Amino acid sequence: MTNPTKPALHPVHLVGAGPGDPELLTLKALRVLRAATVILVDDLVGEGVLALALADLPLPPRLVCVGKRGGCESTPQEFIEKLLVREALAGERVVRLKGGDPLVFGRAGEEIAALREAGLQIEIVNGITSGLSAAASLGIGWTDRRFDARGVLLVTGHTRHDCEGQDWDAVARVAAGGVTLVIYMGIAQIETIVAHLLRILPADLPAAVVQHASSDRERVALSALAGLVDTVAAHGIGSPAVLIIGRVTEEARRAAGFVKTQDRIYITA
Amino acid sequence: MTNPTKPALHPVHLVGAGPGDPELLTLKALRVLRAATVILVDDLVGEGVLALALADLPLPPRLVCVGKRGGCESTPQEFIEKLLVREALAGERVVRLKGGDPLVFGRAGEEIAALREAGLQIEIVNGITSGLSAAASLGIGWTDRRFDARGVLLVTGHTRHDCEGQDWDAVARVAAGGVTLVIYMGIAQIETIVAHLLRILPADLPAAVVQHASSDRERVALSALAGLVDTVAAHGIGSPAVLIIGRVTEEARRAAGFVKTQDRIYITA
Repeated sequence: MTNPTKPALHPVHLVGAGPGDPELLTLKALRVLRAATVILVDDLVGEGVLALALADLPLPPRLVCVGKRGGCESTPQEFIEKLLVREALAGERVVRLKGGDPLVFGRAGEEIAALREAGLQIEIVNGITSGLSAAASLGIGWTDRRFDARGVLLVTGHTRHDCEGQDWDAVARVAAGGVTLVIYMGIAQIETIVAHLLRILPADLPAAVVQHASSDRERVALSALAGLVDTVAAHGIGSPAVLIIGRVTEEARRAAGFVKTQDRIYITA
Repeated sequence: MTNPTKPALHPVHLVGAGPGDPELLTLKALRVLRAATVILVDDLVGEGVLALALADLPLPPRLVCVGKRGGCESTPQEFIEKLLVREALAGERVVRLKGGDPLVFGRAGEEIAALREAGLQIEIVNGITSGLSAAASLGIGWTDRRFDARGVLLVTGHTRHDCEGQDWDAVARVAAGGVTLVIYMGIAQIETIVAHLLRILPADLPAAVVQHASSDRERVALSALAGLVDTVAAHGIGSPAVLIIGRVTEEARRAAGFVKTQDRIYITA
């Protein structure tokens, strides 16, 4: 006996699309995407993801691009939240599709709060975060006991408040204690970041950059920390990219898998 | 013109099974598992994962259980590495299947090195790491800007060298600077860990524990840091579990999704 003037409501799904390779979608993400009637898509979602997920659907969902590139200019977050709420209250099966995992350096918290305030239910479907995909491309663990890596710290090169800085001294001190550093969205500010880190970390600390991790366009660069900025410039590596800094990246040098074939990492002796 | 006495060799796949819910397998993991002839399986791999992945295969692969529970006793790592190498050199299509993601607090580094030394190729297939699955269960981001969460630090409650301790003071100082703390395998040592953290972190800092994240057996507990040990004891929460400590877990309290239905997180206003 539902009120005919009120449509049945469905939970809104926050879904991680993974780092780029469409095959890194989860089975659950695939199911949810194929059941959606409206999908709000980030521009960091891999190009082939929707083509794979929506292939052969008799009635494809409506796609709304709400991308915002790293940096200060962006589609207003408030607009995205209002759109999510409006479509869900209209009875649509709404998916918010984000690159990587929605819970890592995204605005998931704000979106969840907005949906909850509107009385809507939320389901989160994790995705492979690009920092882990970058480690896979390098053929290394985030935390390798042989290097006494005690943990891993994930930070972003962009922060709130008009791109003001992270506390890079604090970050460097953590890394100096044997923690691997994974920096998301760090390319735009790489000179500043590396200069800060070098105040505390040794110049010869191994480091790596992975652009477009897992996708056909993936590129990898390895360098000591002091040479990282020049290496990135020399190879023309831009966003989106992940920096991994720490002794664990030494292992990547021993690998022949410096250049990847498609989405594969082959490491030979 | 291959030598008939030498079998053709295939790359060894290190594959993440995800946190528990079989639907959190990636499409790539599914494909690789279904093509395998030998699978070495960790005991943290979710119960339904292999049943789903291998369903209806005419010729199922050979399964070898090489589990090792957190703690000091374990299947010798060297044995696992030798087995991986031996099977791959015999021409088998070998998958090493691990719970979560193979690059987070696993022994992937050692296994990759052993395979490389044997001249074998390796391909890594990421999985959803349990720390992210736990955040999804709580309905929170790892890093929520509204709480000025500047990053996230992942550490393990178990370390090398006969379970000697982490530098918990250093970990606490990082968290005091506004970084979310995600502690894997921390339940066995939770009293020691929390006691250490409380020397530096405030007693009322919000914290959460998620056991069996994403699986049917998932359980969640929320508490201030000072009450975490009692809360875990009162609810009989054991391993495997993830601790998340930091202001971002405040959001989980606002959610009605405290108890999950199956693999779903419903958060209502």
